[in-house]
Amino acid sequence: MDGDVLVVTQKVVSKAEGQVFSLDRYEPSELARRIAASSGKDPRHVEAVLRESRRIVRMDPVRGILICETMHGFVCANAGVDESNTAKREVVCLLPVDPDASASRVRDAAKERYGADVAVVISDTFGRPWRFGLTNVAIGVAGMKPLWDYRGERDASGYELRATIISTADELAGAAELVMGKLDAVPVALIRGCPYPKGEGSIREVVRDASLDLFR
Amino acid sequence: MDGDVLVVTQKVVSKAEGQVFSLDRYEPSELARRIAASSGKDPRHVEAVLRESRRIVRMDPVRGILICETMHGFVCANAGVDESNTAKREVVCLLPVDPDASASRVRDAAKERYGADVAVVISDTFGRPWRFGLTNVAIGVAGMKPLWDYRGERDASGYELRATIISTADELAGAAELVMGKLDAVPVALIRGCPYPKGEGSIREVVRDASLDLFR
Repeated sequence: MDGDVLVVTQKVVSKAEGQVFSLDRYEPSELARRIAASSGKDPRHVEAVLRESRRIVRMDPVRGILICETMHGFVCANAGVDESNTAKREVVCLLPVDPDASASRVRDAAKERYGADVAVVISDTFGRPWRFGLTNVAIGVAGMKPLWDYRGERDASGYELRATIISTADELAGAAELVMGKLDAVPVALIRGCPYPKGEGSIREVVRDASLDLFR
Repeated sequence: MDGDVLVVTQKVVSKAEGQVFSLDRYEPSELARRIAASSGKDPRHVEAVLRESRRIVRMDPVRGILICETMHGFVCANAGVDESNTAKREVVCLLPVDPDASASRVRDAAKERYGADVAVVISDTFGRPWRFGLTNVAIGVAGMKPLWDYRGERDASGYELRATIISTADELAGAAELVMGKLDAVPVALIRGCPYPKGEGSIREVVRDASLDLFR
């Protein structure tokens, strides 16, 4: 229906877009071989992570931890390169090249098939510093703004909110995870009756500018 | 009903527990005065933040940014000290001293009043590195485990999940924010029909151990 939000997992989008590749495609670099040797990981998998990275934010070669900035500007473990839920062994699944465009295609298809004006969020599962446990966040949006900007509005006691910008897209992605789970490979959740910031936006709005990033 | 989740905002809990204090209570230290002078903040407010902090993780004295570790181990801006939604000017609202205990009291009251065995999440609004926009996260839980541990389980293609621990409590808090908003001072949301990890847990499980923290 108009106003629904479709949250679609990165995994099914990446598969549909052919972002699944055999590990044999990756000839490991010297760095990849060294990290693999110290951590026990597959050097081809490490190579895939390095190729998807614009920047290594932190690494622990012994534990095999690579926190990377992706080409999109997302910071996450292994640059979003994933082995689970890909049905075939010896393959890796990469993030969509342009997740906003992926979301737009789903939105257009929903419009055509159901005549409904929906918002679409592409979700992935990211860790975060300081807090244990992963949550689903948005990596692409269409038909909505990802951020709800309350600056300048006044709360119930008349206090002007000065810094409150909520990442609604991330909260929608997290809410969807609650009903999708991790084992049943549910690829999409529908959220109905939930307010979100109308308009057109891009997930680039959620990528924090380097000049405002205290954790480079 | 049994199995419902009540998400209660930190603000209403802190008010109910008397964690609202006049700024006049705070005699600014030299550091607080200096940060206030460079950032244009109220030195008493800065002092309140410093007193609630166990550790300053990052600071930018010109922009007045203090990313602090609280006594509970949470890392957030201003150690959770807040000025908005407190009705009276010249006051600050501090985090609950023991948010798990706060959640337990709400849980016990729900049991007594409605005969229902509910889970309770105390939520607050935190920023995060790299991603712009705030999301609601859990700062206290009762009647549930905050983390859903999938390690050792197998996904739909038989792949054994090795690292997947979801912070369900944080996703519940974020989902609740979607319907509470920031302006109407809605203090509680009820989530019905959503699976969550049964049992007893503590938000301490979500605080990442320093030895596993690459972003100290």
